[in-house]
Amino acid sequence: MPALKNHKIVLASRPVGEPKPTDFRLVEEPLGEPGPGQVLLRTLWLSLDPYMRGRMSAAKSYADPLEIGQVMTGGAVSKVVASNNPAFSVGDIVVGNTGWQEHAVSDGNGLRKVDPAAPISTAVGILGMPGMTAYTGLLNIGQPKPGETLVVAAASGAVGAIVGQIGKLKGCRVVAIAGGPDKVRYITEELGFDVGLDHRAPDFAEQLRAAVPNGIDIYFENVGGHVWDAVFPLLNKFARIPVCGLIAHYNDIEPRQGIDHLPILMRSILSNRLTLRGYIVHDFADQQQDFLRDVSGWLKAGKIKYREDIVHGLEKAPEALIGLLKGRNFGKLLVKVAEAN
Amino acid sequence: MPALKNHKIVLASRPVGEPKPTDFRLVEEPLGEPGPGQVLLRTLWLSLDPYMRGRMSAAKSYADPLEIGQVMTGGAVSKVVASNNPAFSVGDIVVGNTGWQEHAVSDGNGLRKVDPAAPISTAVGILGMPGMTAYTGLLNIGQPKPGETLVVAAASGAVGAIVGQIGKLKGCRVVAIAGGPDKVRYITEELGFDVGLDHRAPDFAEQLRAAVPNGIDIYFENVGGHVWDAVFPLLNKFARIPVCGLIAHYNDIEPRQGIDHLPILMRSILSNRLTLRGYIVHDFADQQQDFLRDVSGWLKAGKIKYREDIVHGLEKAPEALIGLLKGRNFGKLLVKVAEAN
Repeated sequence: MPALKNHKIVLASRPVGEPKPTDFRLVEEPLGEPGPGQVLLRTLWLSLDPYMRGRMSAAKSYADPLEIGQVMTGGAVSKVVASNNPAFSVGDIVVGNTGWQEHAVSDGNGLRKVDPAAPISTAVGILGMPGMTAYTGLLNIGQPKPGETLVVAAASGAVGAIVGQIGKLKGCRVVAIAGGPDKVRYITEELGFDVGLDHRAPDFAEQLRAAVPNGIDIYFENVGGHVWDAVFPLLNKFARIPVCGLIAHYNDIEPRQGIDHLPILMRSILSNRLTLRGYIVHDFADQQQDFLRDVSGWLKAGKIKYREDIVHGLEKAPEALIGLLKGRNFGKLLVKVAEAN
Repeated sequence: MPALKNHKIVLASRPVGEPKPTDFRLVEEPLGEPGPGQVLLRTLWLSLDPYMRGRMSAAKSYADPLEIGQVMTGGAVSKVVASNNPAFSVGDIVVGNTGWQEHAVSDGNGLRKVDPAAPISTAVGILGMPGMTAYTGLLNIGQPKPGETLVVAAASGAVGAIVGQIGKLKGCRVVAIAGGPDKVRYITEELGFDVGLDHRAPDFAEQLRAAVPNGIDIYFENVGGHVWDAVFPLLNKFARIPVCGLIAHYNDIEPRQGIDHLPILMRSILSNRLTLRGYIVHDFADQQQDFLRDVSGWLKAGKIKYREDIVHGLEKAPEALIGLLKGRNFGKLLVKVAEAN
């Protein structure tokens, strides 16, 4: 019997601007054996998320950068195929940050068994990191109140779609922004947001102004760029801005030139008593049980929906991530790496 | 007996950039009589504060702009010289927002009797709006913890000096910034801040970097401009930035050109999970009793100091405000309008 192989995708070079396929490399290696206390996992679903772009750069962000040659980081749903750890049995479905690879060896730290009541892919989606990112940022920083106007960008995406739906459940008027008519139709007709706007429209800023006659109380920021530029003048006094992501800037090479908007922002923070607060989901790790209870409850009750955009095969992950950074995905982007059985 | 006269200073024209003396006008008018329920006040101390520049502009800030010809707004300590209001007796010392004038008629709304235990000028200083601005912004937004590094700008000024001293009482290491060697000497030798830096030094940014080997946990922003530019790269993860004032920008005419620092700030807010929050003292009006109890207690116990910069005569107020906006004052700027007795 031939030795079993693992395939993984590593960082080949640091992208300058947009990542290129050659910034990634598919590597074959012998499959490791689980040591004492370890488990061997077969990856079923790999999650692709915008934050991965940051890890590819040398600049230290909220996490250390990847090294060249290191396996790309990523959350995944996996099946336990061998176990020397009494906490996990062969056949268990688990979620953890095991990276872009077909198999992973883990000592169990950071692994969590997946609730079989929902499709297992939700463990890296609505019931996983993106869902908890939406839930914690909106509730802790956004603090939505009935009747307030919530603006959410990337509203068909993994985080934005959940932010908007929780906003609706909390009684907000939700003005949602997405790229292109299909996504706009989805967020209004399927997700039930009050207004859907296409940020690619030449008159987007005017459309947004018309859509928020009472101004903006909460802006869930996961985009930046021209969307933030349009939102910013419409913010109400005491508006809250959870800063969750800035996908429009992840591929920036040179700083933007022209008017320096920083003093303008600072003056608005002062006169309008804005709160801008950046966060990542781990900052609210102690709220995981609340999150799982609430969002799985809403999901079971049919009060919240999700949409997946699935690509097949680990080798497709680089191209899919490149597309994600351009807004080409439509829903939570997942790579189906292997069948569950 | 000739009719009594009132003198007041009104907004004559809206400044373009720095206010000029001709933007103000001294007006003489007959002295009004208090009507039913009203009191007649004689102004003793007029407070001059940076926010007044904002009221002179047409742009709506947190308060409505002044109209041309309207009396300049301002807090003042006054003596009741006639009263048709049972809540106030002749001879009472009160504080209220009665403006740049020798006398004011008031229905008593917004007037508060001054505690005679401290010098009455403190009612518009350390025990008044500037003190409460410092107290509420630092404690609610800055949330100082022992061992943290607090950077405060305009640290010899009415607000900054109190921020720094409360920071010391809360166990912070206080790195204080002021303009010129006399002020730097004062904030270190008199106020006991750990480090004093002159923001006019050509190598100010390097000096600041060297002064905060553990980074900056709290930056109390009341300046903006090149001080904020120097502070910003040194902020720690989870740093808090109460945005209280931006005196460096109040006279701005045109937006700054060059690199647009806004996306850079937004990325830092995200990666470092910063909290920037603008406020004015009225947002924390319900904390007035806590403030008066704590700060007057510290004052009586000799744990906190203040310094006043006094000009004499209402007619000197315009020139003094113009100087304040250039950092020419040294301590809380007051106009002594009349003797108390």
